[in-house]
Amino acid sequence: MNAETQQQVEKLRQLALQVRNWGKWGADDELGTLNYITPEAIARACQLVTAGKVFALGIPLQRQGPQSGTRQRFNPIHAMFRDGGDQPTDIIAAEGYGGSDDWIVMPLQCVTQWDSLAHVFFEGKMYNGYDAKLVTSNGAAKNSIDKTKDKIVGRGVLLDVARYQGVPALDPGYAISVDDLEGTATAQGVDVQRGDLLLIRTGHMSRYLEKGNWNYFDLDSAPGVSVYTAAWMHAREIAAVASDNYAVEVRPSELPPFRSPFHICAIPNMGLTLGEIFYLEELAADCAADGRYAFLLVAPPLPVTHAVGTPINPYALK
Amino acid sequence: MNAETQQQVEKLRQLALQVRNWGKWGADDELGTLNYITPEAIARACQLVTAGKVFALGIPLQRQGPQSGTRQRFNPIHAMFRDGGDQPTDIIAAEGYGGSDDWIVMPLQCVTQWDSLAHVFFEGKMYNGYDAKLVTSNGAAKNSIDKTKDKIVGRGVLLDVARYQGVPALDPGYAISVDDLEGTATAQGVDVQRGDLLLIRTGHMSRYLEKGNWNYFDLDSAPGVSVYTAAWMHAREIAAVASDNYAVEVRPSELPPFRSPFHICAIPNMGLTLGEIFYLEELAADCAADGRYAFLLVAPPLPVTHAVGTPINPYALK
Amino acid sequence: MNAETQQQVEKLRQLALQVRNWGKWGADDELGTLNYITPEAIARACQLVTAGKVFALGIPLQRQGPQSGTRQRFNPIHAMFRDGGDQPTDIIAAEGYGGSDDWIVMPLQCVTQWDSLAHVFFEGKMYNGYDAKLVTSNGAAKNSIDKTKDKIVGRGVLLDVARYQGVPALDPGYAISVDDLEGTATAQGVDVQRGDLLLIRTGHMSRYLEKGNWNYFDLDSAPGVSVYTAAWMHAREIAAVASDNYAVEVRPSELPPFRSPFHICAIPNMGLTLGEIFYLEELAADCAADGRYAFLLVAPPLPVTHAVGTPINPYALK
Amino acid sequence: MNAETQQQVEKLRQLALQVRNWGKWGADDELGTLNYITPEAIARACQLVTAGKVFALGIPLQRQGPQSGTRQRFNPIHAMFRDGGDQPTDIIAAEGYGGSDDWIVMPLQCVTQWDSLAHVFFEGKMYNGYDAKLVTSNGAAKNSIDKTKDKIVGRGVLLDVARYQGVPALDPGYAISVDDLEGTATAQGVDVQRGDLLLIRTGHMSRYLEKGNWNYFDLDSAPGVSVYTAAWMHAREIAAVASDNYAVEVRPSELPPFRSPFHICAIPNMGLTLGEIFYLEELAADCAADGRYAFLLVAPPLPVTHAVGTPINPYALK
Repeated sequence: MNAETQQQVEKLRQLALQVRNWGKWGADDELGTLNYITPEAIARACQLVTAGKVFALGIPLQRQGPQSGTRQRFNPIHAMFRDGGDQPTDIIAAEGYGGSDDWIVMPLQCVTQWDSLAHVFFEGKMYNGYDAKLVTSNGAAKNSIDKTKDKIVGRGVLLDVARYQGVPALDPGYAISVDDLEGTATAQGVDVQRGDLLLIRTGHMSRYLEKGNWNYFDLDSAPGVSVYTAAWMHAREIAAVASDNYAVEVRPSELPPFRSPFHICAIPNMGLTLGEIFYLEELAADCAADGRYAFLLVAPPLPVTHAVGTPINPYALK
Repeated sequence: MNAETQQQVEKLRQLALQVRNWGKWGADDELGTLNYITPEAIARACQLVTAGKVFALGIPLQRQGPQSGTRQRFNPIHAMFRDGGDQPTDIIAAEGYGGSDDWIVMPLQCVTQWDSLAHVFFEGKMYNGYDAKLVTSNGAAKNSIDKTKDKIVGRGVLLDVARYQGVPALDPGYAISVDDLEGTATAQGVDVQRGDLLLIRTGHMSRYLEKGNWNYFDLDSAPGVSVYTAAWMHAREIAAVASDNYAVEVRPSELPPFRSPFHICAIPNMGLTLGEIFYLEELAADCAADGRYAFLLVAPPLPVTHAVGTPINPYALK
Repeated sequence: MNAETQQQVEKLRQLALQVRNWGKWGADDELGTLNYITPEAIARACQLVTAGKVFALGIPLQRQGPQSGTRQRFNPIHAMFRDGGDQPTDIIAAEGYGGSDDWIVMPLQCVTQWDSLAHVFFEGKMYNGYDAKLVTSNGAAKNSIDKTKDKIVGRGVLLDVARYQGVPALDPGYAISVDDLEGTATAQGVDVQRGDLLLIRTGHMSRYLEKGNWNYFDLDSAPGVSVYTAAWMHAREIAAVASDNYAVEVRPSELPPFRSPFHICAIPNMGLTLGEIFYLEELAADCAADGRYAFLLVAPPLPVTHAVGTPINPYALK
Repeated sequence: MNAETQQQVEKLRQLALQVRNWGKWGADDELGTLNYITPEAIARACQLVTAGKVFALGIPLQRQGPQSGTRQRFNPIHAMFRDGGDQPTDIIAAEGYGGSDDWIVMPLQCVTQWDSLAHVFFEGKMYNGYDAKLVTSNGAAKNSIDKTKDKIVGRGVLLDVARYQGVPALDPGYAISVDDLEGTATAQGVDVQRGDLLLIRTGHMSRYLEKGNWNYFDLDSAPGVSVYTAAWMHAREIAAVASDNYAVEVRPSELPPFRSPFHICAIPNMGLTLGEIFYLEELAADCAADGRYAFLLVAPPLPVTHAVGTPINPYALK
């Protein structure tokens, strides 16, 4: 390792240790910052729903999706086991009584998704100090996504940084700062509270939606949060953070050769659950229209045992 | 077709036509009874949440699951693309910075799930009169599950028929009647309203949970709703019905040679969304304890395009 | 259908009917021209092997392969169930005794492969008059690839048309004619016999091998056999034909709007087994060097029941 | 580790070191005993084919197969992408011109198969001393099956031990000894030569074929070769060994707690390629009838890069 790399390693190490929550909720904890969500906060968040509006934040699962095949991630492959064109096989079927069945092959992080706390390692460790080697070919023995099965619901807050800056989308490579987050919150008249599920809109996804294709969404440079926002999230005691880009954080990385320095602070050190590829366009338009940026967010993971991620279709309810 | 079969066909046909909702919400509708859910009802349902309790109703996705392989349904196959035991490939990885990635192969109806309205055909037709042949190898051109992507949230009501009858679980083969449903509602002090998401507990799943394995859950006889409850659900304008058995309805069938006569009434004719393999044990215990059988139910489908079902992890919030 | 299309349909129909072999080997036949291979021919072909040279004609199965995702064909997805980095789980494993296991997801026609006789339909029929509807979601009830499980071995003959024409590769769009085939055979000093497995080299694959990537191999224009060679193959009583391009036949098609008119003549009408994406470079170089263009070809299909294609790794033995 | 286990470890270690071939073909070798096959031997083996008979030794790939799901191995899942019941989508399709396409999900060792030399580890090493950690989530960096892509053809010899002992099938748990192998060869009048591909028939598979189902084939006790035959194979310089049971070797193991002691000697130490689940019934009957137990065996692996096994359909030609 050369001196420059060594310096970056040290820099990231300091940022990471600042936000480390290991042991905070006990030596056995596998939930991290989701522990900030209280029953009281959930009940209060439900009271935010007055209009009965529903915003589904999951993108479609289909062959033409955001994955280019890097890191072995491909788009969902859906196929049928039975369909409406099958020749009848018995008298009842001959009368037109039948059915259909289907299946899917997909990376668990190929669409709108939650990362589990087993998704990223720091110095050979996962969140709460678990050894990275506990993630084997059989999956994650600790910090798997099913541990959060009844945990991901609470007060959602949208910080629409793109709208705050008066642009349809932040520039690729733009690193969202703490000032951006605080400025947006102030401008929107919303406070960020302990236990919030924070949605940060960069507008980046709108570029692909307008083009009508997802090509290179996973590979292109993108706006996203700066690694230096990790301490702010830590201080604010955020429960989870999600964004409308591929990886929450800015691309290219602020701390090369690390590809995802914010991830390294957030997941293995802070124990912060991250959500990616969130579709925020309709929700953001509605928040801008009524000036209400806080809502109920319900985003249940699929309880896949030993899994390190999960596709989701979160509901924001206002 | 012999005379006896012909008689059964006629009987089912009459039951089915009684509950048919084709055209009710326009010739282009693909939502069926989910149309009964109004923004007002959603807002009211959210106000039911006062304690901030969360009940996750999805069973684990794992190799040891409820599928025996019939109808080509198998249990989820989960595997890793990257894990914590992989040899480092660069300097950064050598320092223990790394990550994990995974994927899954699964039938979309292998665990707790919603059937789409393209799942069952009646006389060669789907709900709203769409031709069954619109479900091809490419999936469903109409009535696919992604059409409901922002639709499955509302007032949930649990009818715990097993508890009403004072048994841990109804007998296999027991057909739940309208009297059972009404008696349960009365005893529990809950009214069933237009647009409700109705959860019916038979207790059947508890047999497998106690044994600690799912073997033959999909093949065994089971208690479930009678085909004769379809008219009641139609009259009550229920939005969706789910249960803790494999197929909502009783097994064996009340109308052989039809295997799933209730499905045939509900899905292609009424346009009623059905939910299967719901885990209701903890929710039911809580409802019995506090006497409150109505709650907020949020059960987002994965928006898989052209799909005829979706795995889910519904949240009941009280 | 407009007049021009109608004309093309008629033209193709005539070509197809000329080469039709329905009923030739009985009403129950599912092998087609593979019936031309006799035990005597196999024994004679084995006697051609004097040097003990082996040429493997299958391309690698890997993520970077020839499929762009059209017609839902993707490249093979390979992953591990167990690997050498997994943490030991018992005393024996702790001593370094362990193992590895893997799996694959792949279209059966994604690499070097045989088409089954159920792969293409003509006027709603498969080879030998079987109804195309016999190919359902459950696969092919007739003409599936496993029917040929012990049939694909015999005398292989290479016609290296590119070398005959003195070019590294024929031009994209070049339609190989009967004259080309006969001229090549004469120049090479090889006769084409009844029951031969005919390999036709266009040189097209070498373009991609030289570039070091397969991008658009499946979509690009390509040299290949003309639809007008079907009658010649029929007269010569060829058992199977394979080539080093994506589809044996020339692209773009000589008979638009048909995409694959040669396929339509060959598979459902003649009952001719086609092989695609064959790696012929080393074999061709060797044949040019020693002047021997006939050899033993052994190309066993995987006996996947009800399948319409199979990946293969054929051996040419000289 | 207790004293008894320690003793078994030592015993196996001695057996393994006796047959170790590391370095024998150079430090870079990844082929092991397949190196014994010479061009001359291949040419001679081809001359054995006089009748033109073909025996396909691969079992069907289908849902009802030999896998019970242990070690994550399941039976092949085959499905269609396009089929003959699909509604026409254009004018040409409306005329009945169409086609079918399919795909498969399968463990690479779920049917008749070759193990690669990366499949088993001994004291943290693979064949030729490569570190087991070179087998990562990305597959095997050394000793993968594609390295053998043009290597698995040669003189096949069947030793029909069951027939030699006058039984339809050896008893489950019966360990085939060196005496059995030599006695069989003598009785059959066949000599085992350097570079042979040795097929050993136990008759065990016939039990399942007669029952008409494969249930527990992978889990049941079975006859198979003794760990003490490894030295004999080493001395004879066999190129590969295959059998009609699940794991070549006897089950239960002769050296518990090792589950597969013969594998440990053969694969990582000797570098011997093993073949499993071979269908030998028809070949054996023919050999018994004509008294010729030597033949040409052609068993090409699928060249899956980085893979640790491959499904095959070997041809025995006589």
